[in-house]
Amino acid sequence: MDKVTVLNSHDIATLLDMPAVIQVVKDAYAEKTTKDGEIWPMVYNAFSDMADTDIRSGLLKPKKIFGNKELTWFGDNAKKNLPELHGVVTLYSSETGVPEAFINAPALTGFRTGAASAVATKELANPNSETLLIVGAGGQAAYQIMAQICVLPKLKQVLIYDPMSSENAGKFAQELPQKLTILFADNIQMNRPTVAAKIKERIKQIKFIAASNIIEATKNAQVIVTATPSTKPLIKAQWVQSGTHINAIGADMEGKQELDTQLYQNARAFADDLDQASGVGETQNPIKDNIIKKGDVTEIGDVIVQKSVGRQNTNEITIFDSTGIALQDLEAANLALQRAKRFNAGVVVDL
Amino acid sequence: MDKVTVLNSHDIATLLDMPAVIQVVKDAYAEKTTKDGEIWPMVYNAFSDMADTDIRSGLLKPKKIFGNKELTWFGDNAKKNLPELHGVVTLYSSETGVPEAFINAPALTGFRTGAASAVATKELANPNSETLLIVGAGGQAAYQIMAQICVLPKLKQVLIYDPMSSENAGKFAQELPQKLTILFADNIQMNRPTVAAKIKERIKQIKFIAASNIIEATKNAQVIVTATPSTKPLIKAQWVQSGTHINAIGADMEGKQELDTQLYQNARAFADDLDQASGVGETQNPIKDNIIKKGDVTEIGDVIVQKSVGRQNTNEITIFDSTGIALQDLEAANLALQRAKRFNAGVVVDL
Repeated sequence: MDKVTVLNSHDIATLLDMPAVIQVVKDAYAEKTTKDGEIWPMVYNAFSDMADTDIRSGLLKPKKIFGNKELTWFGDNAKKNLPELHGVVTLYSSETGVPEAFINAPALTGFRTGAASAVATKELANPNSETLLIVGAGGQAAYQIMAQICVLPKLKQVLIYDPMSSENAGKFAQELPQKLTILFADNIQMNRPTVAAKIKERIKQIKFIAASNIIEATKNAQVIVTATPSTKPLIKAQWVQSGTHINAIGADMEGKQELDTQLYQNARAFADDLDQASGVGETQNPIKDNIIKKGDVTEIGDVIVQKSVGRQNTNEITIFDSTGIALQDLEAANLALQRAKRFNAGVVVDL
Repeated sequence: MDKVTVLNSHDIATLLDMPAVIQVVKDAYAEKTTKDGEIWPMVYNAFSDMADTDIRSGLLKPKKIFGNKELTWFGDNAKKNLPELHGVVTLYSSETGVPEAFINAPALTGFRTGAASAVATKELANPNSETLLIVGAGGQAAYQIMAQICVLPKLKQVLIYDPMSSENAGKFAQELPQKLTILFADNIQMNRPTVAAKIKERIKQIKFIAASNIIEATKNAQVIVTATPSTKPLIKAQWVQSGTHINAIGADMEGKQELDTQLYQNARAFADDLDQASGVGETQNPIKDNIIKKGDVTEIGDVIVQKSVGRQNTNEITIFDSTGIALQDLEAANLALQRAKRFNAGVVVDL
């Protein structure tokens, strides 16, 4: 019988450290460009306005694995005291087709989505950036903030703006140092003590401030992450200062929008996957408004392997559109599986 | 944490009895026609000529489940002392998106593919058929034979023809009574004793005979199952007697063929899925040869719900092209999961 390692949300939290996930997500983007990674067609189904599922799959040749991630979103689950997100990443050996792991998908997705923005920030933002603005205080916010802290060595403050409720932003900002410490340091204390200590230290050095005025906050930030389900622009072009880098991660279907399309008049556009970004990502909007063409957008993998140039000077505005590719999931899942073997984590079931 | 039931190949063998799987596969075909079942786009990837994987997914509204099956085939695995087929069916609740089960896919696939032919035979074959010919003595053969026995009450003999080796057919025929008894009766003795007893009795009543002459064997059979990886016709039109029903299950990609396309001149064509059958199933061949049009083929679900007529008289030749649909996998997986709960089988893992 096949021996399959099961890694639940607790295992993922104790095995994955954010700096390591950032490294493998960078690998994933490079593998897309070099064709060492294959992305197979995505399956998407909406059950209703409030529930959907998608299956992303692909092959990572250098790691000798392939697999799929099915992630389900049921927006009404809170009424049933259940999380909104569920799902599984299944990894297979590309040498034998044998299944190797079942991994909690929402836990992994938080890490890999945070890491995606961090990879783009590392490649595209001014490295001396001191102020990060995060728009949206939902389930992704803590992962996004932690990942940005990891790649911005000069970061001094994080501004949190919640378009739904400024009260929520205040509560979120107050609880954040403790939340980040538990999630990203305490959890890995046993397996990755050195990384845990560094992360704890960095969290202590940073101020977390609720922002009630989005105009002021935008003007003050050198790096911005938008992580909302918005369908209208939240950030206006005239508020964004030269030299700013923006990670737009909220848009993942037709009709979603977080940025003023005018912003693209004076910005350079990047994305994880050109087709997906121009179809369902933030990039769909400036293309529809005829401000940019699909050909104007650079894939981040091309920047990583130095096929294309990233930031050209300190004044440029850069925008990264993160829509999510299977290779991120497979890289992060493979990291979790390799560490599970090393630290003897998870349970092994006979299939 | 989500509680997920893991059912391995041994669990499937002890939980599923063939008559029950035939019933739920019949439900699956009906659900395709009535739209109570949704089939989502298939993902297929060939790693080489000797290895591939596919992901079939969909939704079964009446059962409140959705899910996917990834089935991998690595044809060189025998050299590594590994089975060629591996994979997993993952079931989710369509009310919450919570994963409910991980199920061994090859074990389930054997049952559901055997059951598929049996459903078609029940709907289309002459019910008094006494002789079954099975062409191919590979991994599917035992499942196909057992399923046919379940739906042909007058069956007296099973002829086994192996296009690769008549010696193999002889050995296979000799071992078959014991093999069928172990696989489909002894395995379910504990959970389904009455069904096990009936199946044992039926196996005893039937002669299993190796056939070295395919022409004679075809002429003698009232029901034929072809289950080979052939790319050339194995059964010629002139050998097939009037009134014969054929289940063609081998063809599952472009270029595969088991039947002489001339056979379709005087036969009525049925399939599980019109698009898939005319694209990659046996049905692709007579369509390419301009002998039938896609519109001439009837989906078996239409016959089951009496939207279309099945066999019209005892003299007709009928051909069923089985290519496999996700709803079969989901129905069979759901049956296994419900029984696992009832008989307290499998293990439950925290995800």
